[in-house]
Amino acid sequence: MKTRIAAGLATCVLAVAFAVSAAEPARPAYSDLLKASTAADWRPLDEDNTLYLELASGRVIIEMSPAFAPNHVANIKALVREGYFDGLAIIRSQDNYVAQWGDPAEKKEDQKVIKTAKKTLPAEFTVPVTKGMNFTRLPDADGYARQVGFANGFHAARDGDDGRTWLTHCYGAMAVARGNDADSGGGTSLYVVNGHAPRHLDRNLTVVGRVVDGMSLLSSLPRGTGRLGFYEKPEQNVPIRAIRVAADVPRAERTALEVIRTDTPLFTKMIESLRNRGGDFFKVPAGHIELCNMPIAVRSVTQK
Amino acid sequence: MKTRIAAGLATCVLAVAFAVSAAEPARPAYSDLLKASTAADWRPLDEDNTLYLELASGRVIIEMSPAFAPNHVANIKALVREGYFDGLAIIRSQDNYVAQWGDPAEKKEDQKVIKTAKKTLPAEFTVPVTKGMNFTRLPDADGYARQVGFANGFHAARDGDDGRTWLTHCYGAMAVARGNDADSGGGTSLYVVNGHAPRHLDRNLTVVGRVVDGMSLLSSLPRGTGRLGFYEKPEQNVPIRAIRVAADVPRAERTALEVIRTDTPLFTKMIESLRNRGGDFFKVPAGHIELCNMPIAVRSVTQK
Repeated sequence: MKTRIAAGLATCVLAVAFAVSAAEPARPAYSDLLKASTAADWRPLDEDNTLYLELASGRVIIEMSPAFAPNHVANIKALVREGYFDGLAIIRSQDNYVAQWGDPAEKKEDQKVIKTAKKTLPAEFTVPVTKGMNFTRLPDADGYARQVGFANGFHAARDGDDGRTWLTHCYGAMAVARGNDADSGGGTSLYVVNGHAPRHLDRNLTVVGRVVDGMSLLSSLPRGTGRLGFYEKPEQNVPIRAIRVAADVPRAERTALEVIRTDTPLFTKMIESLRNRGGDFFKVPAGHIELCNMPIAVRSVTQK
Repeated sequence: MKTRIAAGLATCVLAVAFAVSAAEPARPAYSDLLKASTAADWRPLDEDNTLYLELASGRVIIEMSPAFAPNHVANIKALVREGYFDGLAIIRSQDNYVAQWGDPAEKKEDQKVIKTAKKTLPAEFTVPVTKGMNFTRLPDADGYARQVGFANGFHAARDGDDGRTWLTHCYGAMAVARGNDADSGGGTSLYVVNGHAPRHLDRNLTVVGRVVDGMSLLSSLPRGTGRLGFYEKPEQNVPIRAIRVAADVPRAERTALEVIRTDTPLFTKMIESLRNRGGDFFKVPAGHIELCNMPIAVRSVTQK
């Protein structure tokens, strides 16, 4: 470990935008910070707002944020609870963009009927900043928003301290598909970012959460060859066995996960560590981290 | 088309950093610019510096830039021409990071022998800006470099007009794997970015080019379950049938591609169009484009 610390200090000296005094301890490596985390640095997954997307290949786990899209999160849960998604399919896999699911028969005679949930809702592209939200701001400028950082454990942006805020289209973000009309989505079709963050979609679509486990089941899907990466033949669609709200699933069948808290001194240290990577491998620290390059760690815990 | 143009004009007015006079025509959509391109807006692929990575699933086509990594490009071509890669494999597929190939038996007794090429080379993390390079700079600030834009048809960065320049780790970029020593790579193992641009790797690894076709064959590979996404079992490795230099392949077997020129008025218009997306779908233009979100278009041409 001695070598790593020495190298870490060297990179501090080299980093343009960062001054370090000789008395200050060297910046620890991200992996060491993770190891040094305590129980208070983690939170349980919000199982009331977490979805299990059950595929033949396994389970994709998506945590939603009611603070950022209250009406859409409620409606998606209503769709889930009436079994709307069960038997539907992943219908689109566009390289370096999104994987999307919904009803392959949408707008056709045999389309799935919505029982009690809503088909469409007014857009929730942004919401007002409220006191209930925590926000750990990144120190660097971002091209797409005045402020970016981490709100309630999600990658987020703001146009000011008391203005509007929104979840960003980082890798793994899940959002509500829509047509040209801003209010034409409601959650019956959802997509997940599978490539470089398409941040130009921010404030243009309702982002509801992010994949916290099983992302590779979506990212490694064969790409669709139709326009926008839609699958062209029905047999290419990837069947959805079911989507369930985690809290509705018998405890023994749940996947017990914890998420790193993003409003702690440890998380701020993690940001600083990854803004200036050192160790034996990195020769030039970036002195910067782009929002979507900052991981929000997830770990398995033994089911209590 | 009238609606689209009207919406385009509206987005100009909204965009903070962009002024438009009433007399100026509305900004055209990217797809319309692409359609309006002429032969002079395209260049042939540089077949002397293009690799065909032949997999069972198809062909991945990678264009390399000798201007940015002259010694590594030459050495990779030497490795290719002595058949070094033929029969080797993709050994790593790490979600939201890289796919990597090389010799699964590296450092073992039955490792592939290098004949005339070099095993390692001094790093080419950055090179001096030279007059031979063209550069179309993006108007917006970037967190990882003083200047970013497009040089000789590749996503690139600079620390000044007469300083150093380097290719960036955008989605699809191909670079040289190495150990902790900066000069421990040479091209025997190469990786391609398959997720959100890990720009912190810029200036720390030698980027040699980018995938121009067939990227989905790499991005949809099953993810490795070992540390850093390495495949854990030999049978998980994805065999490489051969890597060939395009110019060495009989003309009838080549894939004829053209790449959009990045040093033209059209490309600058394309940047402006994607900085401020309008049309019927987008409600809020970003007024910005992050380097790696700017596509460098590729098209099939009929073989002459």
